[in-house]
Amino acid sequence: MNKIITISREYGAGGHSIGKGVAEALGIPFYDRDIVRETAKASGFDPELIEDEGEDISKTDSILKSICSASSTYYRDTQEAIHDVQKAIILRFAQAGPCVILGRCADEILREVGIESINVFIHADDVHRAVRVSELIGSTNATEIQRMMAKKDSSRHTYYSRYTGKKWGDSKNYHLTLDSGALGYDLCVKLITEVAQAAE
Amino acid sequence: MNKIITISREYGAGGHSIGKGVAEALGIPFYDRDIVRETAKASGFDPELIEDEGEDISKTDSILKSICSASSTYYRDTQEAIHDVQKAIILRFAQAGPCVILGRCADEILREVGIESINVFIHADDVHRAVRVSELIGSTNATEIQRMMAKKDSSRHTYYSRYTGKKWGDSKNYHLTLDSGALGYDLCVKLITEVAQAAE
Repeated sequence: MNKIITISREYGAGGHSIGKGVAEALGIPFYDRDIVRETAKASGFDPELIEDEGEDISKTDSILKSICSASSTYYRDTQEAIHDVQKAIILRFAQAGPCVILGRCADEILREVGIESINVFIHADDVHRAVRVSELIGSTNATEIQRMMAKKDSSRHTYYSRYTGKKWGDSKNYHLTLDSGALGYDLCVKLITEVAQAAE
Repeated sequence: MNKIITISREYGAGGHSIGKGVAEALGIPFYDRDIVRETAKASGFDPELIEDEGEDISKTDSILKSICSASSTYYRDTQEAIHDVQKAIILRFAQAGPCVILGRCADEILREVGIESINVFIHADDVHRAVRVSELIGSTNATEIQRMMAKKDSSRHTYYSRYTGKKWGDSKNYHLTLDSGALGYDLCVKLITEVAQAAE
């Protein structure tokens, strides 16, 4: 195992904060959705295209085909093409050295090409998540919070199942899963950091 | 959270060794299947009855009914009565103070009565498990090892689902799940011990 750490997470479970904390503790880069998007942009891809891979983006299909280097390949749909763009970017990050990568099925992308990584899943109970989501979306409307949690989880679940053929959140797919609600973010950062340090 | 730690585990993933290591590190008692059985025996229950709750033990049904203090209660079958005996013993252990309890759906038994615990699941890949199972059963016959792993996992899965209504090994049910094959037993002991110490 090396120091590439992938973090999958439920919405509102603090995966972003924890991943960032681990990267800081280890002094290595942290790549989240924004960074993947920015890198895609810098590479010539329209950032709009990877804004939300769960959305209907058929309108951008022709643009994507025109800029994608693998345009000769048959794509089941645009979402698949976007996944391939993200995959290439994630592989570039991983090949550059130790880092923390959030989401995007990074665990499976690296496994496919034989790059070892420490794969982590972060979850939490609904109460802890609701408090965090309330902060994230700036709302105290319970229905809205609940809808947002369900929507985001469903989208991540579908995305993971589609590209890995595995069950999102099944402990078998990860080296370490943590309940950030019960353990607290700081302890989660400490435990993941230790696992990474032990792998040196 | 207090220092009662429950450990669920796949067969051959080292849950027993890891649980024992955690108990030693924390200086607290470790209760495995043997100790639950011995305690039942000392309490007047026939140890044969809880030898293997997956077995057909209908022949012992009348004996059990005659000794079980809750004999007036309707039992769906003998397995359920045995589960109740084990439950009473586990509650007695937990009420006596901090400890590590292996298997027996201890996580759910404690949750039901409102006793907080740190719930851990230990799993490993087939190669690491096969090596361990080979040692445990003293055989290098691959078919036998494979059959044993499938049988034990299926039995634990069924038992957990039946008494908790939840999915065995689903990360949502545990505070911490660990891949002992990739991480190694020593690191697993260290991480669980830290979680327990942080809960002080």
